[in-house]
Amino acid sequence: MNKIPVLEIFGPTIQGEGMVVGRKTMFVRTAGCDYSCAWCDSKFTWDGSAKEDINLMTADAIVQRLKELGNNTFDHVTISGGNPALLKSIDGLVDLLHENKIEVALETQGSRWQDWFVKIDDLTISPKPPSSKMETNWTVLDDIILRLNQHHRLSHTSLKVVVFDQTDLRFAEEVHQCYSSIPFYLQVGNEDVEEAGVDQVANRLLKSYQWLIDQVMTNDRLNRVRVLPQLHALVWGNRRGV
Amino acid sequence: MNKIPVLEIFGPTIQGEGMVVGRKTMFVRTAGCDYSCAWCDSKFTWDGSAKEDINLMTADAIVQRLKELGNNTFDHVTISGGNPALLKSIDGLVDLLHENKIEVALETQGSRWQDWFVKIDDLTISPKPPSSKMETNWTVLDDIILRLNQHHRLSHTSLKVVVFDQTDLRFAEEVHQCYSSIPFYLQVGNEDVEEAGVDQVANRLLKSYQWLIDQVMTNDRLNRVRVLPQLHALVWGNRRGV
Ligand code: SF4
Ligand code: SF4
Repeated sequence: MNKIPVLEIFGPTIQGEGMVVGRKTMFVRTAGCDYSCAWCDSKFTWDGSAKEDINLMTADAIVQRLKELGNNTFDHVTISGGNPALLKSIDGLVDLLHENKIEVALETQGSRWQDWFVKIDDLTISPKPPSSKMETNWTVLDDIILRLNQHHRLSHTSLKVVVFDQTDLRFAEEVHQCYSSIPFYLQVGNEDVEEAGVDQVANRLLKSYQWLIDQVMTNDRLNRVRVLPQLHALVWGNRRGV
Repeated sequence: MNKIPVLEIFGPTIQGEGMVVGRKTMFVRTAGCDYSCAWCDSKFTWDGSAKEDINLMTADAIVQRLKELGNNTFDHVTISGGNPALLKSIDGLVDLLHENKIEVALETQGSRWQDWFVKIDDLTISPKPPSSKMETNWTVLDDIILRLNQHHRLSHTSLKVVVFDQTDLRFAEEVHQCYSSIPFYLQVGNEDVEEAGVDQVANRLLKSYQWLIDQVMTNDRLNRVRVLPQLHALVWGNRRGV
């Protein structure tokens, strides 16, 4: 049995960002990432600090835990990371969730293909902009989009770019131009993932959100787009597990 | 030529709520409503206070004004009210926008049918809950949903209910149960549409949003739902025309 390294299972809560923003969902957060983004808000998934908390779980055990927590109050699960696309073993989890009539969302930066991508109901590919200090492998990203298209999955796919500054915005334009038929989301970056006060985090993020709106509204290369904040950060600040 | 009574044309800005939340859009706000909701945030569209500001405009004049304001930085227009479904003359505007390769969104409470509903790209039907002091005519609402279904338009349709309290929540459950196959949005009510300070409005609305999330997360009659605040109110408070 292929096990999955799990760091957190929580919910039901709202999906705070992207293509199903606001959706009632449960979260499964996997350990491990092939990136190390400068502003990663889930560093504990890959920097070793939560190594002791990793549970190697079967799909069965994960679904059992989801049901313990969520009872019959959910029908949607978001698999998050880290980068869950590192794990071939997610395949069985997606199947088991579908057998239980539960929809599955997933976010990945688009650095690896997995055959089980074509089964994901809400797939967000989120290439990382220059402020992350990571470099997008465009060949891999192209290949992922091509395969999704070949499997007629583009209606289940979206692209999302986090934007901190003008350079990130240029990167976002480039991504949107390359894949203009895919629903495109721009997301406000969180400048301080350590700040404690909830109201302070919210007011700061709303100012950044307003900046991003202003930038996008006057930009004719970003028309068919959606600009969103992270709702969970507005409500709960930088808290984990909500 | 059938003219349209217009109160405001503005944008580009974000759509702050509902099925295309975050979408870059222009707004056309029409005058007149068959309801008078207790907490209406657009009372000036029907209470006579902005009577002098109503412009009777042709579809051509509206599109011209949109282009003056938005140049080539938009491809989406939201028709809002009041209740635009009172106006047969919206038909020509929708056609003209489509001819210009512009998508059209519309929100209405579901009290009147118009044949042009079947051309709307993003149609939000928003029955008003008990706190509004309005009564939903279920026969009319049923008929609207039936017709949209007959025209294969349900993939372009969503239902949205604003929730202020437990009674509204029961109403939302009822609507969702009746039309369970239609994407369903729950929206936080704004208790004070006059409050001035932007940060204060945001922090109050985020508290209400958290309350609504808590209610929905433990409710097994509200699973396949999305819970959202009004993003424009978080960013700009109660200001008009943004
Ligand atoms: S890809 Fe995601 S999880 Fe990985 S380092 Fe970047 S932000 Fe963090
Ligand atoms: S239906 Fe809408 S515009 Fe009409 S009174 Fe109610 S909230 Fe206001």
